[in-house]
Amino acid sequence: METSKRLFETNRRRMLSAFAALPALPMLFPGSALADLGGDPLPSWNETASKKAIVTFVERVTKQGSPDFVPEAERIATFDNDGTLWAEQPMYFQLLFALDRVKLLAPQHPEWATTEPFASLLKGDVKGALASGEPAVMKIVVETHTGMDSVEFSQIILDWIATAKHPTTGRLFTEMIYQPMLELTAYLRANAFKTFIASGGGIDFMRPWTEKVYGIPPEQVVGSSGKTRFELRDTRPVLMRLPEIDFIDDGPGKPVGINAHIGRRPIAAFGNSDGDLQMLEWAKGGGGVRFALIVHHTDAEREWAYDRKSSVGKLDKALDAAQAEGWTVVDMKNDWKRVFAFEGK
Amino acid sequence: METSKRLFETNRRRMLSAFAALPALPMLFPGSALADLGGDPLPSWNETASKKAIVTFVERVTKQGSPDFVPEAERIATFDNDGTLWAEQPMYFQLLFALDRVKLLAPQHPEWATTEPFASLLKGDVKGALASGEPAVMKIVVETHTGMDSVEFSQIILDWIATAKHPTTGRLFTEMIYQPMLELTAYLRANAFKTFIASGGGIDFMRPWTEKVYGIPPEQVVGSSGKTRFELRDTRPVLMRLPEIDFIDDGPGKPVGINAHIGRRPIAAFGNSDGDLQMLEWAKGGGGVRFALIVHHTDAEREWAYDRKSSVGKLDKALDAAQAEGWTVVDMKNDWKRVFAFEGK
Repeated sequence: METSKRLFETNRRRMLSAFAALPALPMLFPGSALADLGGDPLPSWNETASKKAIVTFVERVTKQGSPDFVPEAERIATFDNDGTLWAEQPMYFQLLFALDRVKLLAPQHPEWATTEPFASLLKGDVKGALASGEPAVMKIVVETHTGMDSVEFSQIILDWIATAKHPTTGRLFTEMIYQPMLELTAYLRANAFKTFIASGGGIDFMRPWTEKVYGIPPEQVVGSSGKTRFELRDTRPVLMRLPEIDFIDDGPGKPVGINAHIGRRPIAAFGNSDGDLQMLEWAKGGGGVRFALIVHHTDAEREWAYDRKSSVGKLDKALDAAQAEGWTVVDMKNDWKRVFAFEGK
Repeated sequence: METSKRLFETNRRRMLSAFAALPALPMLFPGSALADLGGDPLPSWNETASKKAIVTFVERVTKQGSPDFVPEAERIATFDNDGTLWAEQPMYFQLLFALDRVKLLAPQHPEWATTEPFASLLKGDVKGALASGEPAVMKIVVETHTGMDSVEFSQIILDWIATAKHPTTGRLFTEMIYQPMLELTAYLRANAFKTFIASGGGIDFMRPWTEKVYGIPPEQVVGSSGKTRFELRDTRPVLMRLPEIDFIDDGPGKPVGINAHIGRRPIAAFGNSDGDLQMLEWAKGGGGVRFALIVHHTDAEREWAYDRKSSVGKLDKALDAAQAEGWTVVDMKNDWKRVFAFEGK
């Protein structure tokens, strides 16, 4: 399992392609209700330095007449997704989607019984399936993420996310979101920030549900993507998902993706791993007051504890940078009153 | 001149790359004030079928309880820029920027006196400069649009657009915007639409000024782009503009770019040329009530008259499609009370 996790970490750039577009559909996402902003806007945060740093920043940039005041249009905040807004253990949820989809499609692919990486996957041997590395990952991505049109893919994601369960908690994946971070996104929006996701994950894996779950609409989601092609199917226009990587929104790709999609530099950025380092540097590198925050996974009881040596969400260089630069590092165990909404208040 | 225009039309896909990102700067853009929305929201439109079609569409999708009602979040409208929001004659304004920039940079490039395409350009021989076709165009793009960082490029654009004058009207380019279309974007926003630009032009050529001029923020601008790379210059993070095309947002690329940036299908789209055909098809191809509009340049006195045989903004197949499908075709001469704000009311 460790090997397969490492492999997927290594190959994440190739793995996490995506596409799609679909008007938000009415769905039920238990546990994702936005916090009541009456009174304390951050009720799931303990009264520690992290919360104070957030509130101080927001007050500084929103105070009219202050030298630190930032006009509303420039209040751009970017959030990583995996490990920052929702959990990423025991492996990226998009990978779990891909594995589920292989199982679902297997009856239509009798040849997979004797074709790698599918044969091993279907026997439950993830490690063996991925032994060949990147070619195996690409084969899985091609079979699970491409070949359909953008609307069809959105529906596939919606069907999966409405029913699939997390392998250790048994919860819906949309219940595996961090309540304190959900409150934080809402707090920023209440202060006229525009909140964006900037994730290494697939843009079209996220877009079908981010509005319902996070209050972040599809046009404010940045992520990795595959190429699409406009076609007329009979007379009906479709965007076909092609088996070709378009862009990897990770590491030094994050500022590139943020610039391409938003065209402004964030004044606040939120991440949890080395894949977020350049995004945080980019946000901090602008003029005026800037805010950078790292979620440090320190809570083995309520969530998971991991950092420098983790194969998923490795936090090493970015932790050093945070300490050197004085960025806010959230100690999940001590800073968060609760992690998930399903814990109860 | 005709040849060079055709050449640029042909090579537009390669030509119009761009990048950038900069917080909006205080600038004066005469003639771009948004319409007073008290009373008639479209005062520069005559009471013809085009105006009626627009108002009828907006009323249908915004009426609570109506079967055609569209929730606010899904009210996405996309506008082409060249020839739809501002003029595009005698040639694309971004091309005029590139030519101006060659002249500006010439003193730092003594070798250009004997190097094509620059030698011909500097002698005023645009046609000769572009005789070699695409390689010449790419050389001009590389010298004028790349090699600097994103912030520097934004400033270059802002400096140019604040001072450069249109070759035949002598007006600032930001005065060459269509007052009726400006009113239309504002009318849609007043009805909770989110307005986007989807242009074949360079995304970073537009973003520095679209918010001030059109009320459309940089994160709602889709366009052609070049690649950028994240770098640390000393310790300062920058996005360097590379001499490599990333994406061409034209023709069948428009639905692709719209999907990549917005992640939702527009319910209304506005264009003026064959480069907008697929965007209009894509918008119309969704469910429910949809709106597609083409600006037909029929006014040789107040603007320019051109369509099927024009080398710039050719409108041929899209005009046939509009007639076959019943899309709204704006007859600029008869439908618009005034074209530019500087005409006076």
